Amino acid sequence: MKIYDISMEISEDVQVYKNKEEKKAKLIQQYNFQNSSVYETQLMMNLHTGTHIDAPLHAIENGLTTETYTLDQFFGPCQVLDFMTVEERITAKDLEKYTIEEDTFILLKTKNSLDQEFNYNFIYLDESGAQYLVDKNIKGVGIDGLGIERNQSGHPTHKILLGKRIPILEGLRLEGIQAGYYDIAAFPIKIKNVEASPVRAVLIEK
Amino acid sequence: MKIYDISMEISEDVQVYKNKEEKKAKLIQQYNFQNSSVYETQLMMNLHTGTHIDAPLHAIENGLTTETYTLDQFFGPCQVLDFMTVEERITAKDLEKYTIEEDTFILLKTKNSLDQEFNYNFIYLDESGAQYLVDKNIKGVGIDGLGIERNQSGHPTHKILLGKRIPILEGLRLEGIQAGYYDIAAFPIKIKNVEASPVRAVLIEK
Repeated sequence: MKIYDISMEISEDVQVYKNKEEKKAKLIQQYNFQNSSVYETQLMMNLHTGTHIDAPLHAIENGLTTETYTLDQFFGPCQVLDFMTVEERITAKDLEKYTIEEDTFILLKTKNSLDQEFNYNFIYLDESGAQYLVDKNIKGVGIDGLGIERNQSGHPTHKILLGKRIPILEGLRLEGIQAGYYDIAAFPIKIKNVEASPVRAVLIEK
Repeated sequence: MKIYDISMEISEDVQVYKNKEEKKAKLIQQYNFQNSSVYETQLMMNLHTGTHIDAPLHAIENGLTTETYTLDQFFGPCQVLDFMTVEERITAKDLEKYTIEEDTFILLKTKNSLDQEFNYNFIYLDESGAQYLVDKNIKGVGIDGLGIERNQSGHPTHKILLGKRIPILEGLRLEGIQAGYYDIAAFPIKIKNVEASPVRAVLIEK
């Protein structure tokens, strides 16, 4: 069995959405072997930094929080679709080229996976693509950008997906992952009453 | 397929080791629908709060960090052992009652799972038990206390296990989980150059 890592490595230098200062990760040494018999670090981080899932509350006022997802939404059949040649946005037309089975976690592999720094022109999933995936009854959708849309007015992509309680997995690293079929494991850290959670996302070879 | 959650829920009120103030989780609302078109939270937390894995650097000076574990150490065959009647510590003698297969992730279920607040007299794994598990070539070991030992001088349990690069999974919640065989998934969040990482730990019914 081979397990592929598809997660971003969190550090103080990791790229964050729009390079916003308040989104950067801080790692603070609380204890070390000079002042203690153990070594311990404190993490300070926006929940949308690194690889993470969004829950409805992220984009919908009074929306549902991460604990309302069920664990089986984050484990099982997954299909990686190759959009490396897309230059701007993924549309319903782009998605129609593939056979998409219901109850599958769909990952969108784009040129974003090559970006080591935040790219303001990252590839995104547009409104028509989000609606197409909802109509296919997918289980979840992931992308290798820190957003699944590029701050489109009103956040329609987020609202279409999250309105149907479909988890959005952002900040993936898919370079080196071949398009095709896998099992995914991407269980969110259990945090009470929040709109997002960090995830270690992996693909397991079938 | 049934997936069982065995993770602690992180909140500002979650129990922390020895009730230390600097270990408590803080959740700060950075954006909400009054000041933005999205809702976003920042997490500040010691990496040993909630369910987490320890890497060697936690107890061994200049020890290895979490990224030196391989992903297959956090996925696959797992055995839950019932020590609900143990009153103080789990020893080699206690473990000898069970058949333990090599390359299995071993979880120790104790009365700790019932504690809603931090219990200074939590059940722990002693030095003899740690050595017994190392000799069995287990893949990893987990317990339902926030520590696998109760601050024993020199931290022998940690050092025996971590010296052999065996991941220690702490802060599990095993109430309601029956002893027996499962698959575990407990992949740590990918953080660079640290001694521990939060984990969403689950058991998958065989």
